[in-house]
Amino acid sequence: MNQPASTTNEAAATLEGWYALHDFRSINWTAWKAADDEERAGALDELNDFVKEWSNIEAAGSGSSTAYAIIGQKADFVMMHLRETLEDLNKLETEFNKTTFAKYTTKAYSYVSVVELSNYLGGKDEDPMQNPQIVARLKPILPKNRYICFYPMNKKRDLSDNWYMLSMEERRGMMRSHGLIGRSYAGKVKQIITGSVGFDDWEWGVTLFSEDALQFKKLVYEMRFDEVSARFGEFGAFYIGSLLDAELFGEMMRL
Amino acid sequence: MNQPASTTNEAAATLEGWYALHDFRSINWTAWKAADDEERAGALDELNDFVKEWSNIEAAGSGSSTAYAIIGQKADFVMMHLRETLEDLNKLETEFNKTTFAKYTTKAYSYVSVVELSNYLGGKDEDPMQNPQIVARLKPILPKNRYICFYPMNKKRDLSDNWYMLSMEERRGMMRSHGLIGRSYAGKVKQIITGSVGFDDWEWGVTLFSEDALQFKKLVYEMRFDEVSARFGEFGAFYIGSLLDAELFGEMMRL
Amino acid sequence: MNQPASTTNEAAATLEGWYALHDFRSINWTAWKAADDEERAGALDELNDFVKEWSNIEAAGSGSSTAYAIIGQKADFVMMHLRETLEDLNKLETEFNKTTFAKYTTKAYSYVSVVELSNYLGGKDEDPMQNPQIVARLKPILPKNRYICFYPMNKKRDLSDNWYMLSMEERRGMMRSHGLIGRSYAGKVKQIITGSVGFDDWEWGVTLFSEDALQFKKLVYEMRFDEVSARFGEFGAFYIGSLLDAELFGEMMRL
Amino acid sequence: MNQPASTTNEAAATLEGWYALHDFRSINWTAWKAADDEERAGALDELNDFVKEWSNIEAAGSGSSTAYAIIGQKADFVMMHLRETLEDLNKLETEFNKTTFAKYTTKAYSYVSVVELSNYLGGKDEDPMQNPQIVARLKPILPKNRYICFYPMNKKRDLSDNWYMLSMEERRGMMRSHGLIGRSYAGKVKQIITGSVGFDDWEWGVTLFSEDALQFKKLVYEMRFDEVSARFGEFGAFYIGSLLDAELFGEMMRL
Amino acid sequence: MNQPASTTNEAAATLEGWYALHDFRSINWTAWKAADDEERAGALDELNDFVKEWSNIEAAGSGSSTAYAIIGQKADFVMMHLRETLEDLNKLETEFNKTTFAKYTTKAYSYVSVVELSNYLGGKDEDPMQNPQIVARLKPILPKNRYICFYPMNKKRDLSDNWYMLSMEERRGMMRSHGLIGRSYAGKVKQIITGSVGFDDWEWGVTLFSEDALQFKKLVYEMRFDEVSARFGEFGAFYIGSLLDAELFGEMMRL
Repeated sequence: MNQPASTTNEAAATLEGWYALHDFRSINWTAWKAADDEERAGALDELNDFVKEWSNIEAAGSGSSTAYAIIGQKADFVMMHLRETLEDLNKLETEFNKTTFAKYTTKAYSYVSVVELSNYLGGKDEDPMQNPQIVARLKPILPKNRYICFYPMNKKRDLSDNWYMLSMEERRGMMRSHGLIGRSYAGKVKQIITGSVGFDDWEWGVTLFSEDALQFKKLVYEMRFDEVSARFGEFGAFYIGSLLDAELFGEMMRL
Repeated sequence: MNQPASTTNEAAATLEGWYALHDFRSINWTAWKAADDEERAGALDELNDFVKEWSNIEAAGSGSSTAYAIIGQKADFVMMHLRETLEDLNKLETEFNKTTFAKYTTKAYSYVSVVELSNYLGGKDEDPMQNPQIVARLKPILPKNRYICFYPMNKKRDLSDNWYMLSMEERRGMMRSHGLIGRSYAGKVKQIITGSVGFDDWEWGVTLFSEDALQFKKLVYEMRFDEVSARFGEFGAFYIGSLLDAELFGEMMRL
Repeated sequence: MNQPASTTNEAAATLEGWYALHDFRSINWTAWKAADDEERAGALDELNDFVKEWSNIEAAGSGSSTAYAIIGQKADFVMMHLRETLEDLNKLETEFNKTTFAKYTTKAYSYVSVVELSNYLGGKDEDPMQNPQIVARLKPILPKNRYICFYPMNKKRDLSDNWYMLSMEERRGMMRSHGLIGRSYAGKVKQIITGSVGFDDWEWGVTLFSEDALQFKKLVYEMRFDEVSARFGEFGAFYIGSLLDAELFGEMMRL
Repeated sequence: MNQPASTTNEAAATLEGWYALHDFRSINWTAWKAADDEERAGALDELNDFVKEWSNIEAAGSGSSTAYAIIGQKADFVMMHLRETLEDLNKLETEFNKTTFAKYTTKAYSYVSVVELSNYLGGKDEDPMQNPQIVARLKPILPKNRYICFYPMNKKRDLSDNWYMLSMEERRGMMRSHGLIGRSYAGKVKQIITGSVGFDDWEWGVTLFSEDALQFKKLVYEMRFDEVSARFGEFGAFYIGSLLDAELFGEMMRL
Repeated sequence: MNQPASTTNEAAATLEGWYALHDFRSINWTAWKAADDEERAGALDELNDFVKEWSNIEAAGSGSSTAYAIIGQKADFVMMHLRETLEDLNKLETEFNKTTFAKYTTKAYSYVSVVELSNYLGGKDEDPMQNPQIVARLKPILPKNRYICFYPMNKKRDLSDNWYMLSMEERRGMMRSHGLIGRSYAGKVKQIITGSVGFDDWEWGVTLFSEDALQFKKLVYEMRFDEVSARFGEFGAFYIGSLLDAELFGEMMRL
C-alpha cells in the first residue's frame, strides 16, 4: 500500500467534452392554479421560447438540451443541458430563473459535470481528439428516447475496499469486465458518463436513455454484481423520467 | 473474491410486472380549516371522483390503487398505485396535483418501483410468464386489509458483509431460509416486493398488508435474525397505516 | 456465523400491549402572539377539552396520555399516548390537528411503537398474559413524574458487532447484566420500552420518567459501558422534558 | 472484550452542577427591516430587559448567562444559560419566545446539557462537593472573553475503536495525557464541559472561551493527535462567535 | 499505536494569516421580479457600494474580497472575504444582511476559516514570519481568475485509516508526495488553504482559482490516487463558479 503514487497508482487519463447541467425542478401547483389564464398562457409562451432556443444551439453545434418529466415527488421535470463553457450553463440557468414560468417552479436538485471518456482501454499512441467517433461522444446530441435515468456515483475509499489504492492493472482489468456488461446492452441503453470531480458532490454522473425503462433496472442490477460496482460503487439518488416534448410539457401544465 | 462476474457471481433473474408509485402526502390542516364549506365540499367531491376512477382501472385489469392513513407525523396518507407504464403513474401524480384537494396537501415522500419476482428458487426450464399464478403476482390487485406497512431496503455492500460478492449458491441458500420465514406468515401477512434498482434510492420496496399490525412487527423482527437480514439487510424509513376507504377519508377530513 | 437461523439464532419472544404515539410539536409563537385574545382563549379552551378527555380514557382502562414541555429547540412539547389500536392513535392525532390550538403549532417529530416486554429472562412454562403484573406493564398508566426522557435505538449490525448474529445464549447473558443496571435504578427511574420494528425508523423507543433529571444521565451513561450498549447500542435523538399539567400548559401559553 | 461490566469496565464517576442551554438563533433581517422604527425600538427595549435580568440571576448566585454573535450563516447569535433546574431553562426559552424581538428571529440550533466534572483523576477519599474550587467549577460564572467556541462530541464505539469497551485503567491513562494538553493552554483558553448523555444528541458539549480565537484552533488541532481524540473523538458542528454585550447587540441590530 | 502523543505523534506546526468567510447566497428570483424598477435600481446601487468598499480594504492592505457566480442550484453566488479579525468578518456579513439587496437573497452555505500554511516541509531554524513570501501567502490578495472551486475536507480517522495516529515521519513523507502533484499545476491553478479546526464543521477549506475549470478536475482527480487523499481524504460539498465583476453581477440581475 506504500508504492509511490506516480507509478502503479497513477490516475487513468480522461478526455473531456461539453459541460453538463442537470437542472431538476418541481412545480408549485398551488401557485399555478391560482394564476389567471392570461398569466399562465404568457408563462407557457415564454417557456416555449426558452425551449425552442435549444434547437438553434443544437443546429449550431454548440450544445444540446432535453427535458423529461420525473416520476415521483423528488422533482416534476429535469432539463439537461450540454454546453461549451460553464458560463454558458450559468447563463441558461439564470435565463430560466428570469422567466415567468420559473416563478411557478422550485429548485429540486442539480448536478454540474462535464462529458467524460475514461481512457482505461484506449491505445497509448493515437491522439483521441483526431478520432471523430470520440469527438462525437464528447459532444453528443442528447438522444430523445422515451425514458431517462440519472444517478451520481463515487468509487469507494473504505478500508480494504479502496479503489484509489488499487494498481492501474487491477483497475483496468475490472473496468474491462464492467465495460463488457455495458456493451451487452448496446442498442437497448445509451449512456453518457459525465465527470464531476472538483465540480459537484459525487465523482461521476451517469445518464441513461432507453425506449424501455426496465432496461435501466436490468443494466444497473447486473452491474451491481460486477466487482467494480459490488465492492467499489457508491451511489447517490436515482431519478427516472419520461420524455417531455413541447406538446407533453403543455399537456402536463394544462389545468 | 476475484472470480469473474460472469460465472459464480451472476445476478439472479427477475421478473417484472406493473410499475408502482407510493405517494405519501401530508394535510395542511391550517389551510383546510381556513377554507369555506363550499370550497371544502368541492375539494372532497373532486377527491372522490379521483378515487372512484381507481375501481374502473381495476375492473379493466390495467392497474390497482389503494389508500391508507399513515400513523405519526411522517405523512397523513399514502396512495399506492400499480399501473402498466411509468407514464401512467406520472399522469396519476399530475392529475392528483391538479385537483383542488391537492392544494390542501404537501408532499411527504414517494417511491418509484416495479412489482418484481426474484427467480432464486424458480426452475430453469419453465417459462414463468405462462404460469397464471406468477402473472397474478406480477400484476396483483392490491389487498384491502386493515393495515399497511411500507419500507425500502438494500442488500449491504460493506467490506466482509457484501451481498453482491457472494456466489449464487450462497445467496440462493440464504434466500431459501428467508423465504421459509415469510411462508410461515402465510394467511397472516401478504407481501408485495417491488424492485427499484435504477428507479429510486433503495434497491427494493417492501409493502406488507395484514388484518393485525402486530404481525408486521413479528415478521420483520423474526427475519432480522435470519442471516440475509442480519448481515445484509439495510433498511430505510418504515411507514405504517390503516385503511382509508371513501367513508374513512371523508371522516378524516370532516371538521 | 453460518448456523441455521431456526436454532441458536432465534428471535426472543416478545409480548405486546398498548400502541404508543409520541407526538412532538413546536409552537408558532409569532402566529400565537398575532392572534387576538378571544382567539387565544378559544384555542386554549379547545386544548383543555382535548386534554381532559385523556382522563376519561384512563378511567375507562382503554389507554393513557400525558404531556411534557421539551427543553431546547427540538420541540416545545410532547404528547405521549397509549391506546388499544393504531386507529385510536390516528384518530387522536387527527383530532388534535383539527383543534384551533393546532393551528399555532408545527410538527416536530413523532414515534409510533407498541409497549413491549422482551421475554429473554422469562420462564418458558407460564403463560405471561395470566400474570397481572405483566399485563399491568403492557398496559401501563403513564407516570406523572417531574421529568421525561425519550430516545429511539437500534441493536447494531456492523461487521463483527452484529447483535442479530449472536446466539440466543450470548444475547441472554448480556441482557441479564443490562437488566441488573436497570434494576439498580428502581425507585429512581421508571422505564417503558416500546418496540417499533416494522412501525417506525428505529427498533425500540425508550421512555424514562423520574423526579430527578440527573438520574437519566447516570442511568444511560452507566449502561453505555455495558457490552449490550457499548458494542451493540445505536442511539437516535434524545428528548428531555418537564411535566405539563393543565395549569403549566396554560402558563406556558399565557402572553 | 467479555469482562463483566461491573468491574474493569466501570463508568467513571461524574459530578454535575448547573443545567445548560445553548440557544442559537438567526435574525430574520427582511422582517426586521420591514418593521417600523417604533416597533424596532420596542423590540430592542424588551430584549434589553430580558438581558438585564441575567445580571440579577448572576448576582443572586442562581445562574449565569451570556451572548455571542456567531460568525457565518449557521446562526446570528447564541445565548448560553446556566441555571439550577431544567424548568428554569425552559422558562427562559419560553420568555424569550414571548418577546417581540423573538418575532424577528428563527431557531438555528440548541443544546441541552449539565455542567460536568469527570472524576477520572480525582482521589477516592475526599468528598468533592466539600471542595469550594470544585463547586465553583460546577456552578461557574460564564467568562466574558472576546471569543466563544462550541461543539458537541461523542466517544466512538466503532469496532476496535470502542471507548466504552476499554478498561478504566486504559481510559484513565489516556485522559491524563489529554488533560495535560488542556492544562498547557491555561491562561489562554477557559473550557466548560457539559454532559448531555440522556439530554441531547451527543454525549458532551465543549464550550471554550478565549481572547484569541486562534487558540481554539491550536488547542483542538493539538488534541486531535492525542489518542483520546484521534481514535475515539467524534465531533459535531463547530460554532464560533464574538462577544455581544448590550452595546454590540444594539449596534448589530441598528439599521 | 500506543506511543505517547507528545513525541512521534506530534501535531505539525501551522502558521495563520487572515480570517476567511465564504458566504454563499441564492437569489429569490420571484421576489426580485416582483419588485418595481426603482426598488431594484436602489438595491443594485447599494450592492455596488458594498462591493466597491472591498477595493478600499484591499488598497489598505487589511483584507481582500471577491465574488463568483455559482453554477447549479446549490447557490447563485459566493462572496469570499479575507480580513484581519473574526469581528471584521461578522461586520461584513451583518452589513450585507442590512442591504436592500440582501432582501432578495437567501442563505445557501457559509464557511469560517483562517488562511493557513502547514509547516510539514519547513526548516526548523528560520522564523517564517520574517519571510515576506510567507507573509504574502498568509495575507493574500485574492486572484481574479475566471473560475473558482471550493470544498471543505477532513483527514480521516477510520480504524486503520487514521491520519492522526500516524507518526510525524509518515505524515511528512505523504505530504511531500502530495505537494509534488500540487506543484505540477503551478501556473495553472492557484490554491488557498484555510484551516477551520475549531471554527467550522470540517478541518480545512480548499479554494482553487484557474483560467480553465478543467484543471480543477484534473488536479483533484490526480490527487485522489495519492495516498494522502486516497486513504485519508474525506471531502464535503464541491462548489464551482465563474467570476462576477460589477458588470457581470449587474448583467446577472438585469431582467
